[in-house]
Amino acid sequence: MHVVVNAAMSADGKLSSRRREQVTISGDEDFERVDRLRAESDAVVVGIGTVLADDPRLTVKDSGRREQRLENGQTANPARVVVDSKARTPPDARVVDDEAETYLCVSENAPVERRMDLSNQATLVTAGDDRVDLLRAFATLQQHGLEQIMVEGGGELIFSLLDDGLVDELTVFVGPQLIGGRDAPTLTDGDGFVENYPELSLEGLEELDDGVVLSWAVQY
Amino acid sequence: MHVVVNAAMSADGKLSSRRREQVTISGDEDFERVDRLRAESDAVVVGIGTVLADDPRLTVKDSGRREQRLENGQTANPARVVVDSKARTPPDARVVDDEAETYLCVSENAPVERRMDLSNQATLVTAGDDRVDLLRAFATLQQHGLEQIMVEGGGELIFSLLDDGLVDELTVFVGPQLIGGRDAPTLTDGDGFVENYPELSLEGLEELDDGVVLSWAVQY
Repeated sequence: MHVVVNAAMSADGKLSSRRREQVTISGDEDFERVDRLRAESDAVVVGIGTVLADDPRLTVKDSGRREQRLENGQTANPARVVVDSKARTPPDARVVDDEAETYLCVSENAPVERRMDLSNQATLVTAGDDRVDLLRAFATLQQHGLEQIMVEGGGELIFSLLDDGLVDELTVFVGPQLIGGRDAPTLTDGDGFVENYPELSLEGLEELDDGVVLSWAVQY
Repeated sequence: MHVVVNAAMSADGKLSSRRREQVTISGDEDFERVDRLRAESDAVVVGIGTVLADDPRLTVKDSGRREQRLENGQTANPARVVVDSKARTPPDARVVDDEAETYLCVSENAPVERRMDLSNQATLVTAGDDRVDLLRAFATLQQHGLEQIMVEGGGELIFSLLDDGLVDELTVFVGPQLIGGRDAPTLTDGDGFVENYPELSLEGLEELDDGVVLSWAVQY
């Protein structure tokens, strides 16, 4: 399994404002880059916070790329995965529409009714007591044949994945704006590290739109 | 007056961990770059949070650069400025030692005794009722001949300066590590923007040490 985190942050490391409203950080070229990355992935993963805030569809937008996948014997779109400890994904969320297969990773303590409601629309992966045990959940995803994984956020999920040593690469578009705010969501939230900070090595550096794409390999 | 913010942040936009302990983000090459920037400045500005957390001296480390300044008819070191609304700078802080001239920007409500204690060691600039009025304080600094200003953080001061439209350039070393933490200090804290995000234009992009220096011009 190979896990790539891909995100767009402002020049000060924020994913959106303190109101958690979406901010346009990148442009058309980055949009194409992200669509290409999605098309090359077996699964696109987000946390429940991102589903509730942005209601993303997480599908491949370019029809040529979807056709290419079909020609390769793949599904038109990669699978979608939501890490959703309490099974809060709304049944009308785009991420559980019928455009692609969806996996919901939930914990044992997610309300049974919500899990039953959602089980018609998604494959449930149950791992962990109160919070999703990411190591076990990702092992299950791998058993389903999902090897090339793209994580699109948010900052809470990204921290948890790093904390569990599950991230191989980090690709960040750094945008030409400042958002600020001590309470605005950032690329890596969670409790944060206080020692043994994950080290990175710079693998790529590219100007794109009016910002920069930094590609890092994670070295645990 | 020309104001450049210079800071080093982790790849996820943090200045230090949630414990506010210093994290080594950059290396020798960036250290030289910062020392050169200081030597080219009339004043180096920090917020009181940075003084209390790091006790920086803010002087030019390279003796050749100090000598060059003296040859140019300048003081050996640029002036140091602390934005310190409540006059909390400890009398034994390095920033008020006798290595360079120091200005303390305080508010009208800073305790009179603390102001009197500090007035032997620094020039007090009083502006604003409860918090320092940065526009007035910086106008006073300019009257003292301080034109080329370098701001070294932290994130609360950087936000306030941006909010007041006082920043011309932003130079950020992005380091090869992740710190994480929703409560860790970031490049731009404060309340944050929720609209009219300050826009940047990329002026420079350079690999340095094991990270990247991004130079932005601020476009209000």
